[in-house]
Amino acid sequence: MAPTKAGERLIYMPLGGAGEIGMNAYVYGYGPKGKERLILVDLGVAFPDMDSSPGVDLIMPDISWLVARLDRLEAIFITHAHEDHIGALAHLWPQLKKPVYARRFTATIGRMKFEEAGLSPSTIQIIEPRPQAVTAGPFTVQFVPVSHSIPESAALVIDTPLGRIVHSGDFKLDANPGVGEGWDDARMEEIAAEVPVKALMCDSTNVFSLHPGRSENTLHGPISELIAGQGGMVVATTFASNVARLKTLAEAGRAAGRSVCLLGRAMKRMVTAAQESGVMTSFPPNITPEAALEVPRRNLMLIVTGSQGERRAASAQLARGKYLGLEMKEGDMFLFSSKCIPGNEREVGKVINAYSEMGVNVVDDSGGKYHVSGHANRPDLEHVHRLLLPDMVIPMHGEHRHLREHARIALEAGIAAAIAPNGTMLDISGDVPKVVERIETGRTYLDGSALIGSMDGVVRDRIRMALNGHVTVTLILDENNAPLGEAWVDIRGLPTTGKGARDLIETLESDLSEFLDGASKKLLADDDKLEEALKRVVRQVSMEEIGKKPELTVVISRLAAE
Amino acid sequence: MAPTKAGERLIYMPLGGAGEIGMNAYVYGYGPKGKERLILVDLGVAFPDMDSSPGVDLIMPDISWLVARLDRLEAIFITHAHEDHIGALAHLWPQLKKPVYARRFTATIGRMKFEEAGLSPSTIQIIEPRPQAVTAGPFTVQFVPVSHSIPESAALVIDTPLGRIVHSGDFKLDANPGVGEGWDDARMEEIAAEVPVKALMCDSTNVFSLHPGRSENTLHGPISELIAGQGGMVVATTFASNVARLKTLAEAGRAAGRSVCLLGRAMKRMVTAAQESGVMTSFPPNITPEAALEVPRRNLMLIVTGSQGERRAASAQLARGKYLGLEMKEGDMFLFSSKCIPGNEREVGKVINAYSEMGVNVVDDSGGKYHVSGHANRPDLEHVHRLLLPDMVIPMHGEHRHLREHARIALEAGIAAAIAPNGTMLDISGDVPKVVERIETGRTYLDGSALIGSMDGVVRDRIRMALNGHVTVTLILDENNAPLGEAWVDIRGLPTTGKGARDLIETLESDLSEFLDGASKKLLADDDKLEEALKRVVRQVSMEEIGKKPELTVVISRLAAE
Repeated sequence: MAPTKAGERLIYMPLGGAGEIGMNAYVYGYGPKGKERLILVDLGVAFPDMDSSPGVDLIMPDISWLVARLDRLEAIFITHAHEDHIGALAHLWPQLKKPVYARRFTATIGRMKFEEAGLSPSTIQIIEPRPQAVTAGPFTVQFVPVSHSIPESAALVIDTPLGRIVHSGDFKLDANPGVGEGWDDARMEEIAAEVPVKALMCDSTNVFSLHPGRSENTLHGPISELIAGQGGMVVATTFASNVARLKTLAEAGRAAGRSVCLLGRAMKRMVTAAQESGVMTSFPPNITPEAALEVPRRNLMLIVTGSQGERRAASAQLARGKYLGLEMKEGDMFLFSSKCIPGNEREVGKVINAYSEMGVNVVDDSGGKYHVSGHANRPDLEHVHRLLLPDMVIPMHGEHRHLREHARIALEAGIAAAIAPNGTMLDISGDVPKVVERIETGRTYLDGSALIGSMDGVVRDRIRMALNGHVTVTLILDENNAPLGEAWVDIRGLPTTGKGARDLIETLESDLSEFLDGASKKLLADDDKLEEALKRVVRQVSMEEIGKKPELTVVISRLAAE
Repeated sequence: MAPTKAGERLIYMPLGGAGEIGMNAYVYGYGPKGKERLILVDLGVAFPDMDSSPGVDLIMPDISWLVARLDRLEAIFITHAHEDHIGALAHLWPQLKKPVYARRFTATIGRMKFEEAGLSPSTIQIIEPRPQAVTAGPFTVQFVPVSHSIPESAALVIDTPLGRIVHSGDFKLDANPGVGEGWDDARMEEIAAEVPVKALMCDSTNVFSLHPGRSENTLHGPISELIAGQGGMVVATTFASNVARLKTLAEAGRAAGRSVCLLGRAMKRMVTAAQESGVMTSFPPNITPEAALEVPRRNLMLIVTGSQGERRAASAQLARGKYLGLEMKEGDMFLFSSKCIPGNEREVGKVINAYSEMGVNVVDDSGGKYHVSGHANRPDLEHVHRLLLPDMVIPMHGEHRHLREHARIALEAGIAAAIAPNGTMLDISGDVPKVVERIETGRTYLDGSALIGSMDGVVRDRIRMALNGHVTVTLILDENNAPLGEAWVDIRGLPTTGKGARDLIETLESDLSEFLDGASKKLLADDDKLEEALKRVVRQVSMEEIGKKPELTVVISRLAAE
């Protein structure tokens, strides 16, 4: 450990992932106040929804704070290849242009993304698990294998001039995770024995799950049994990145005498990455969709994308009909080897009901037999607190309620803790964390090919049009400010008829004409006031006719005097 | 039972509620084919969401089939006062204008709604439980008390020339529901003993819940204990219509030495209706919000609306800050004595996280101690099948997967069954149900004050604007078809800058100008072709600049030759 100087401090600040689940991005800094050298851990995405972000493609952390301090940023570390940890990297890296470090599998996925984005894949450097270490300014960082629902998830050991930090990443306690290294208590104890752990930044996702987590390997039996008992085609879905589960499913299918076919781009990509990076040495042989068409249904198993009911994924396509010539029929089984992420219930329900209409038997995780979570439950978190004996626990990766509950159990166990939602800068130099600053953090939207801020008003306008509909009014005035013809109205997303079955456009146009007939010369000469007046008329008439106040675009054109 | 004539038949057809949960509306008919006399059971609403029905106020069944056969409709029966059973009545009754029958509490709620809608409350007639009966054409209908999560829920005994039908309504097996009559096996056995039950149309909501349902009275202990242990203010929410729960909560509050205050219009209305209709003779005294401001927090309990996180309800208002001067603080408790209806997870989560930020302890139903469902679980359904011994079970009140599972368990028990989603007409004259017709059923939206069809394209246009944004293009052409000035562009819900930080409007305008400069006289003279061409330019430029194809309104104005 380098000698520390008076006035230097160790800081931590999440830009995403704390106070919400998704778009993880955590900043660590060390140095004199306002001159700390910085590293960034993870740069992930969150997924949009119609309620708050219609039309948006991806939600990413607002990194403007970092961009304004680029000269102080040393490096970026990615703990694992889940989209909420790596998904924003290729989109935002061009604003950061710093070295990126990850383990082999994570780097393989990251490099694929960099290639697609036209960036140099070699920017992402592969780091082996500790003892290999990366020095980044005042920080020395090591990757520690942990088990999770994707291969090669890592915790980070971050050594600083003021002590050792463990950044948990996403993890669960699973000694037999199927693919990749298992959880190992000894590995953690060694870390704490080597250098006392000052702070543990810790995954909080499952803090409300009160039973100890279950191992991936508890699924082999039930899934095999389930599949062995089926007479029709078997289709199963899980997260594409859960390579161990894909293997479990495929093995169960093969054991039941079925040919296995993977459907969905994401799934094939993950299996390829797992094989290329060497984390998965054997995956049961699988056949192409074309070959699958020739296999009798009772001998066929499809493993498909779309565990969350995503419209364009294979599961939803099969729910709507044929997909690559394959089709589900009465007596087939569809297995959700996955949980429904809160907020996706409606989409998943649609898929299940569509299968129900086809006579397909849907099996989900409601019995708890065909899926296990990738995150540590409360007793597991408490176990890790005890293994590492940190001076403080800073909960991360959770909504506010998760962070609060996780902090509560740490405090109850006599460990200092702080709730630090996005934008909260903690000074963790001393024995207890102190909030020293709160910065404005927002979200950056990838919208088509454009990056926009969540507060730019773009999405707000879309939501307003979705709620209120839209009216366009055009009016042409001659060189003497007299209306040339009548105001013209177009409506979109509004009922076409109002009270007494009157045509809404006609009513609006005739009421606007009446208004213009009585308008003063002065009003007609003033663009802004005239626009406001026309809007008032449209709003009032719309309210009377259809009970809504639409969004409005008014275009006033004036013919120039010649 | 009246003698039956050859060629007459007994039919059943749901217009809502089967294949989805919500907007219940079930038609029964008896008579010669195509001339059946009809009755309607329930006329409820479903609730809109941003994904599929942005801006819509309420979703109601499409009753055009009934409206086209008004001369054959005898009467409307309402089983209970939940919105999904009664909510569309006041909106659609003016199209039906038939007598409405309901029990006293249900009628009280219905009459309030009729008054608000400017309809005559006396249209809704109060019917006492059987043996009172209503004759409606070939049908004799009796109301049978069942327990549910609202007072005076009823099953209907519908006697027809071809036998007895039991329409279950919404129910659970609860001998001690707190308010209103309990479930009584003997009552059901008597019905079946009197006249054999031909068909049971049966609630399917909880068919996937494998344990027997629990009684409302199991909640008194845990809720009282929970509240007694609190030091700060206690706030609890449940469905406003769950009057028994309101009473349980209020009694627990009073027992803990707290003054109780009800917040939210719906809640006060329900308590008033329960008292006015006589179903609830005693409700603990409660105080006004003004009086509540004077009570120390440790002696105060609020019972509030908004168990589903509804934006405008009291729970969400308190999550955002003060509501009627009342405010939650660190150490207070908020109890969800309710379940989160699938699809509302995000909204409920927002409220919980907002409370978490305030330091409020949120208790929800995850432990299963503070809420019980109002619907019969699978073993309860099987019990009712055995009590009534119907020739056939027709599952209703469920998504397709629920109907399918419910039919499956009936068939397994040797009872005939059919899955009849909305618009499926069953002939139930014989021993087994037969599908005889499928009509097109849609949904009717209450949108502001207008009624529109779900397939009218109005909502589709809103969704498109929400996903793609909107561009208005206006162009004026002179009497010689030459552009007068340049095309003018307005954008809404779109990024303002495209590639290389170019202003999107400027780019669109200059590319449109360039296009118009090169446009042929013929094109400029043809409104339709010109509009299409301008749209092509806007779509292409938008795609290049921002990666999106916006919705478009193009207004071409032509100056008339003078």
